[in-house]
Amino acid sequence: MKLLLLSNSRMPGMAFLAHALEPITEVLTGLDSLLFVPHALADHAGYASTVREAMSAAGVRVESLHEARDPVEAVRAARSLFIGGGNTFRLLTELYGMDLVSLIHQRVRGGVPYIGSSAGTNVACVTIQTTNDMPIVEPPSFNALGLVPFNINPHYLDPNPDSSHQGETREQRIREFHEMNDRPGAGIREGSWLRIDSTRVLLGGLAGARLFRKDQEPTEHRPGEELDLLDLPSLHDSP
Amino acid sequence: MKLLLLSNSRMPGMAFLAHALEPITEVLTGLDSLLFVPHALADHAGYASTVREAMSAAGVRVESLHEARDPVEAVRAARSLFIGGGNTFRLLTELYGMDLVSLIHQRVRGGVPYIGSSAGTNVACVTIQTTNDMPIVEPPSFNALGLVPFNINPHYLDPNPDSSHQGETREQRIREFHEMNDRPGAGIREGSWLRIDSTRVLLGGLAGARLFRKDQEPTEHRPGEELDLLDLPSLHDSP
Repeated sequence: MKLLLLSNSRMPGMAFLAHALEPITEVLTGLDSLLFVPHALADHAGYASTVREAMSAAGVRVESLHEARDPVEAVRAARSLFIGGGNTFRLLTELYGMDLVSLIHQRVRGGVPYIGSSAGTNVACVTIQTTNDMPIVEPPSFNALGLVPFNINPHYLDPNPDSSHQGETREQRIREFHEMNDRPGAGIREGSWLRIDSTRVLLGGLAGARLFRKDQEPTEHRPGEELDLLDLPSLHDSP
Repeated sequence: MKLLLLSNSRMPGMAFLAHALEPITEVLTGLDSLLFVPHALADHAGYASTVREAMSAAGVRVESLHEARDPVEAVRAARSLFIGGGNTFRLLTELYGMDLVSLIHQRVRGGVPYIGSSAGTNVACVTIQTTNDMPIVEPPSFNALGLVPFNINPHYLDPNPDSSHQGETREQRIREFHEMNDRPGAGIREGSWLRIDSTRVLLGGLAGARLFRKDQEPTEHRPGEELDLLDLPSLHDSP
């Protein structure tokens, strides 16, 4: 299994995906094509064009799922997958609608490299229950691809001590997640990513991550650290 | 119909509900008891105690739904309702679990005053699709109480021009809601509320609101304005 789960796809002042070209190239070693899933955004064609331009720098040809005559066949034939960010509820709804949830799970578990960013990172988890997105559409289930046995909160934000806003901080939200769920949650800040294979979870990028476990104080992790997240109960143990 | 839908329940430096005691007292005119629904938070007893203290200033006795032997009977007997804030997904899941969704709809449509704050405001709408909350638990449906024929985004936040955060702004999120849904969405800032009866929606509080309609530019509204939101198609026209 070979996963690269990015917090976000663009850093301020940089081109789309530019901050993560090195780990993307590493995950795609030996492959020159990618199947891109643009369904988290409404504008599939515009999104595919952005990703094509970003990946051309790495010499990778991008096919976009929205152009495939048969999405199931396209995923069956894909040599690598990239699911982009946008709205997680819309993305998961469309993956169910195209009957791709189990198939993507099988293919990635079988070795097809998977890159996700933001919403594409959320759907790689057991459920989408730690997304930041607005529930603009109702998916058939919150259960997602289940590629990793924990939850991720992308775009993780530390509390702002100067804010008078009364909405919950991100940390409070993840604590509420743990009032209802047992799985660990990794809050990965913008510019960070997790590089995952069958035996380890490696934290990459610049900004670090914060790990939340039920009934425990959160722990802070620096780039280059391995996170102890794979020795967990079976997947899809949703509440 | 008599509704008071608050953006939030506490302003910085003020006691719980203190900023909204005047409209609360007005909505409860002639009534000295309130049935409080604490289920958006995990700590029902602590939450009920906070609300009891806040309402004692107004001479209103608070019964809390978590103490009722029969929740259905308690809602049937209630002379007014207050649903507090917390996590909207948890709140709606518990309302369905107690079989209260239709009953609350009927009672409020029949004239029982309803006060909601934050999550309690979200569930008053047709659906919870403009909540800011994390989907920590999966409700049977996103359809909510349907007391008003539009959506509300409480704790509405204007974009911060100094922020380099790459997550969607609130306005972008509501635009995405309108990529998938037709209903108007009212973004009500902290300290604001909507006072609604069968014929009008009045914006109260200090901070104003921003109104979003599909395929239109958002409009800005000041306290004291009436919002043109009741002449809408029938309820539960969810996507």
